[in-house]
Amino acid sequence: MPVAGNYKFMKSIKRIAILGVGFMGGSLALAIKKNFSGIFIVGYARSKSTYKRLSKLNIVDKVEKDLGKAVCGSDIVVLAAPIYSIIDYFKKITPFLKQGAIVIDLGSTKELIENKAHKYLPKNTYFVGCHPLCGSDKSGAQFSTPKLYKGAICLVSPAKNKTALRKVNSLWMRLGCKVILVNAKTHDKILSSISHLVHVISFSLTGFVPKAYLKFAATSLRDLTRVSNSPAAVWADILISNKKNVTRDTEKFIKGLEKFKELIKKDKKEEILKLIKNINKKQKTISALH
Amino acid sequence: MPVAGNYKFMKSIKRIAILGVGFMGGSLALAIKKNFSGIFIVGYARSKSTYKRLSKLNIVDKVEKDLGKAVCGSDIVVLAAPIYSIIDYFKKITPFLKQGAIVIDLGSTKELIENKAHKYLPKNTYFVGCHPLCGSDKSGAQFSTPKLYKGAICLVSPAKNKTALRKVNSLWMRLGCKVILVNAKTHDKILSSISHLVHVISFSLTGFVPKAYLKFAATSLRDLTRVSNSPAAVWADILISNKKNVTRDTEKFIKGLEKFKELIKKDKKEEILKLIKNINKKQKTISALH
Repeated sequence: MPVAGNYKFMKSIKRIAILGVGFMGGSLALAIKKNFSGIFIVGYARSKSTYKRLSKLNIVDKVEKDLGKAVCGSDIVVLAAPIYSIIDYFKKITPFLKQGAIVIDLGSTKELIENKAHKYLPKNTYFVGCHPLCGSDKSGAQFSTPKLYKGAICLVSPAKNKTALRKVNSLWMRLGCKVILVNAKTHDKILSSISHLVHVISFSLTGFVPKAYLKFAATSLRDLTRVSNSPAAVWADILISNKKNVTRDTEKFIKGLEKFKELIKKDKKEEILKLIKNINKKQKTISALH
Repeated sequence: MPVAGNYKFMKSIKRIAILGVGFMGGSLALAIKKNFSGIFIVGYARSKSTYKRLSKLNIVDKVEKDLGKAVCGSDIVVLAAPIYSIIDYFKKITPFLKQGAIVIDLGSTKELIENKAHKYLPKNTYFVGCHPLCGSDKSGAQFSTPKLYKGAICLVSPAKNKTALRKVNSLWMRLGCKVILVNAKTHDKILSSISHLVHVISFSLTGFVPKAYLKFAATSLRDLTRVSNSPAAVWADILISNKKNVTRDTEKFIKGLEKFKELIKKDKKEEILKLIKNINKKQKTISALH
């Protein structure tokens, strides 16, 4: 369900730490700077090279090499990393989280992350799972833009602590997101169907097409293979962490493909016409969305 | 192989008939009018309603309700219709074709069409199979544009009669196409992989996604389902007329999907990382094409 925002909840937020300042994390920093005043943003850099690169980019107020120093005193800690790195962060940040700190993540699957958050994070801190649906065929902090989240849907897991939930919702809404509350289990089921399976298909199609034929590629192949440029480190984690839904959806999708193939094999023109006409109608619903 | 054009070959062309003035046929008429002078273009309208519509659109020099009158005296007859309608036209136009007339088609499969052309067309006429690769997610003469063929690859089947072949190649090149000669059998194999399978996948994906989830659809789903708005009448014919290649490619693609699914199911992170990284590289080849 969509929720309403109330920006007074954000008044207590003075310091935000972003762990993983890539395209998503970097854009979040820029969007917060643009939409709020008085919030100090610290970006954590795991390696020397990242530290150097981030220091030049002027995306966060301070680049911090020490994880403890980055997390310490932060009102919100944002984990913007591949799924299993987010889970690793839960263990690592625990000693540094202040009482009442809110931890959010931007991961593309939610159930495993939520379970691990509840397992590892201290009791006097609050976890709120977030997933802003804004495509990232780009990766790298250098592409960061404060507009990334504007107009995007942000799926938020309904956390038990209502104050923490309200603060997080208000943050996203101030950045221009439409916040929809969806529990972690349902989130993963939906995302498997509308995104994770879609990536598996795109990866497989790019893998399938013979190299020698690529030079003839027209619009349709380019459309369907575009997201197969998505980063391996991010997607291996997404697919494995949501494997129950993704494997089930892949099997279902294969069954549909096999049915279609049989209709073609048996020259069932009338049935193919009917099928495609129904699909055409459904496609109109998708293209009318944006 | 790419070919060179020589426009003197087109000097003998005074009259072109287009049978099927939709988006592709209409755009061809506009492009010819823009790029050549002294060619009279007749458009055939099968029904009264099409006749009325076309007469208002001012795309061709004359709209003709009588098939015989449309074809009679034409130097080139263009068949721009679904595959099995093209084949029907071969039988119907035979009595009206003048000696030395060139018949071309714009169909998306070539082997069946070429066989039927050789079966039905009179001996003193020349058939040259053509397939300009310019996407048509639009359909209907009202969307016609003289720019459609500019910069597109046009696959031409190497006809035995070299004079006819040169004329047709010169026509496409003058419209801005890059002409590549590919025999019908190879054409159908390539197109199955880079376009027909791609449409089967897109149709199947749109069919698969639960309606209730569509409102969450982000970029990836929209990209992969876009071509599933392609017209049923055109695509039923394409898929059935190329069923040998399309069913084989669908089976191969399914095998790839199943392998990917097994890697996910068995948590094979290292193998998935390697697979996606290789796919990322191949995707760069595709996105660098245009």
